[in-house]
Amino acid sequence: MTAQTAALAPSETPEALVARLAGAARAAQAVLARLDPAAKARALHAAAQALRDDAGQVLAANAEDLARGEAAGLTGAMLDRLRLDPARLAAIADAVDQVADLPDPVGEVISTDTRPNGLVLSRVRIPIGLIGIIYESRPNVTADAAALCLRSGNAVLLRGGSEAVQSNRAIHAALVKGLVSEGIPAEAVQLMPTQDRAAVGAMLTAAGLIDMIVPRGGKSLVARVQADARVPVLAHLDGICHTYIHSAADPEMARAIALNAKMRRTGICGAMETLLLDARFPASQQVVADLLGAGCELRGDARARALDSRIVPAQAEDWDTEYLDAVLSVAVVDGLSDALGHIARHSSHHTDAIVSGDPAALEQFLAEVDSAIVMANASTQFADGGEFGLGAEIGIATGRLHARGPVALEGLTTYKWVVRGTGQARP
Amino acid sequence: MTAQTAALAPSETPEALVARLAGAARAAQAVLARLDPAAKARALHAAAQALRDDAGQVLAANAEDLARGEAAGLTGAMLDRLRLDPARLAAIADAVDQVADLPDPVGEVISTDTRPNGLVLSRVRIPIGLIGIIYESRPNVTADAAALCLRSGNAVLLRGGSEAVQSNRAIHAALVKGLVSEGIPAEAVQLMPTQDRAAVGAMLTAAGLIDMIVPRGGKSLVARVQADARVPVLAHLDGICHTYIHSAADPEMARAIALNAKMRRTGICGAMETLLLDARFPASQQVVADLLGAGCELRGDARARALDSRIVPAQAEDWDTEYLDAVLSVAVVDGLSDALGHIARHSSHHTDAIVSGDPAALEQFLAEVDSAIVMANASTQFADGGEFGLGAEIGIATGRLHARGPVALEGLTTYKWVVRGTGQARP
Repeated sequence: MTAQTAALAPSETPEALVARLAGAARAAQAVLARLDPAAKARALHAAAQALRDDAGQVLAANAEDLARGEAAGLTGAMLDRLRLDPARLAAIADAVDQVADLPDPVGEVISTDTRPNGLVLSRVRIPIGLIGIIYESRPNVTADAAALCLRSGNAVLLRGGSEAVQSNRAIHAALVKGLVSEGIPAEAVQLMPTQDRAAVGAMLTAAGLIDMIVPRGGKSLVARVQADARVPVLAHLDGICHTYIHSAADPEMARAIALNAKMRRTGICGAMETLLLDARFPASQQVVADLLGAGCELRGDARARALDSRIVPAQAEDWDTEYLDAVLSVAVVDGLSDALGHIARHSSHHTDAIVSGDPAALEQFLAEVDSAIVMANASTQFADGGEFGLGAEIGIATGRLHARGPVALEGLTTYKWVVRGTGQARP
Repeated sequence: MTAQTAALAPSETPEALVARLAGAARAAQAVLARLDPAAKARALHAAAQALRDDAGQVLAANAEDLARGEAAGLTGAMLDRLRLDPARLAAIADAVDQVADLPDPVGEVISTDTRPNGLVLSRVRIPIGLIGIIYESRPNVTADAAALCLRSGNAVLLRGGSEAVQSNRAIHAALVKGLVSEGIPAEAVQLMPTQDRAAVGAMLTAAGLIDMIVPRGGKSLVARVQADARVPVLAHLDGICHTYIHSAADPEMARAIALNAKMRRTGICGAMETLLLDARFPASQQVVADLLGAGCELRGDARARALDSRIVPAQAEDWDTEYLDAVLSVAVVDGLSDALGHIARHSSHHTDAIVSGDPAALEQFLAEVDSAIVMANASTQFADGGEFGLGAEIGIATGRLHARGPVALEGLTTYKWVVRGTGQARP
């Protein structure tokens, strides 16, 4: 980014600032859109190397953020999200290299058709344009999101959290240095030069300037973005993921999947938050005992509580709560249709799973549960772009249009129709 | 639709009305989503037949609308859009039959992948859910839009214009009679039971209840929908379509395409509105003379006016005007990059075309023009779902996400990830 672009002009409104940055980004994106895959890959490898070369500056900037955060009384968890060390920074650079090596989706011919009049129609994948990323305290998002957007030919406008402002600036400066060394315009990757919250509002309403917003952070951030945005948003608000143990589930498989779905990592959006036990499943007590034994608090309906006295009563709001912790709501249901009904009422349409040995039950569940990801005989913790073979993810979407579930490079593209004729006029 | 659903409850707010209708529609959609393609096709054929059977009632209702419209002083063009006759009604029924026979996109496996851990991942095409259609005086939209939504497994909430209220009710009643005879829930196709404009506002803000809105009508309707909607909108506002005649264009091809692109039908969104003549194209005078001879008013820049004294001066706003009439703005440009610049500044990103015999110029134009449809050596009037082989269209979209250009059944679907495991837990 040139000094002129990055600088805050005196008395510039937030809307004027966003318009100016977006205008420069869109001009840079037009250059990006014409680059071949190898050129974009080279530029991203150079950006990764610049991150390694400038590790000292990045870690020094991060130390400033950490000192400020400690003085401001950030919690240990918040400081941990903010903290970089040589190993974490190396992992960030490695991730940029990995994105550089992913197949470039741009230029893919999605479909082609020759009409009876000789017109040849193709749908060709192209970048979306300018992506806005609004995120909180994890500075790795600066590099991850920039790499995914660039690999798919998009410009990106980054707006990170105030806790990480020095870290983000240092990471951004290193990335841009690497990109520019390979001929990418600096304005293709911009970091919002102010922490003014009004500038976030201006991004959210910049329809026609920013093509899509991806919020990365906690529920309150995502909720604000979804409520205020006039630009399309790719996001999920909640991950209230269910696992239904059908009567015909293999008991050992059910125990292993339930324990993993809840306890492998409790803080991720794909963690199970509600367990539905079929009344005719014979090993519910063992499933429950495993979870209690692993340190999980269980909140159950009356029939669940009859399985184990350590289960506490669930309140009505428990069925709609994403705990992101070692807490689980448990209900006993009467068969598949009862389970489907519970999921239809309470799922956040992120990821829901069934465990069963009955193929008909599996297929009915997969067909009828209306979520972005539906799973048979697997842990909901697999809901992740890397696990899905996408190489990375910009986020997981629970909306119904454009892209759903884990979203990576393809979800950062759109298409245009290309029509090749030989002089056809329409009769 | 049952009488209870359709009736307006006394003192019900517009928001409560939309929530009630949408709730019933979503329940009906869950039934639709489970039907096989043949069942949906049978139901649509029955709906088409019911339209034929009830032609008398529909034409009588239309006569009421026409009489009211004449009394209210509607223009001849407006009355013509509203008017049905036996031939037009037969064409509407035939169109429903044609949609019934289109391939069903639901259930298509878009991609599939087996991960190293044995998980089998598929992306499977599913209906979007509930589509809202907001339209003006053409009563054929009632049947066309309902058929496209149903064929793709979606429920639909229709809100037509007040001029056509009796026609729309009669068409809707016939359609529902046919659908119900084949077991489709009546609530899958609903017609808003009030012309209250506040109910349109309630549709536009019904995020989470209505999944997508498609406005069908003039620019003021589309502009209002785009400005007020909190629900995703599939639409185009303007069709400011350009044709660039490159220096290496075949003169006869250029003349034929330019005349067709402007004059075949001047009132459609794919009609050319601006002609860019390369300064080095030798036959510009003939292209201009053809258009003038066909009765088109030409508004040109100084260099265009030098081609023919009958060309009147263009004002600045002409380059951003969709005439939808026998009027055309004409500019002389210096080569491809000048043409690309003009199009980047003024195109509405609907459809833009080049005429040239130079393959490199064609490919550069197709790659660099950032519109939903880009064409080489063909008339922009081909921008149409039927001409593109889609069988029909719900509309043409110039947004960048989800679906672009002519949108038919595939654009009325989304996908979910289906994951089939054999007991996998995430390490």
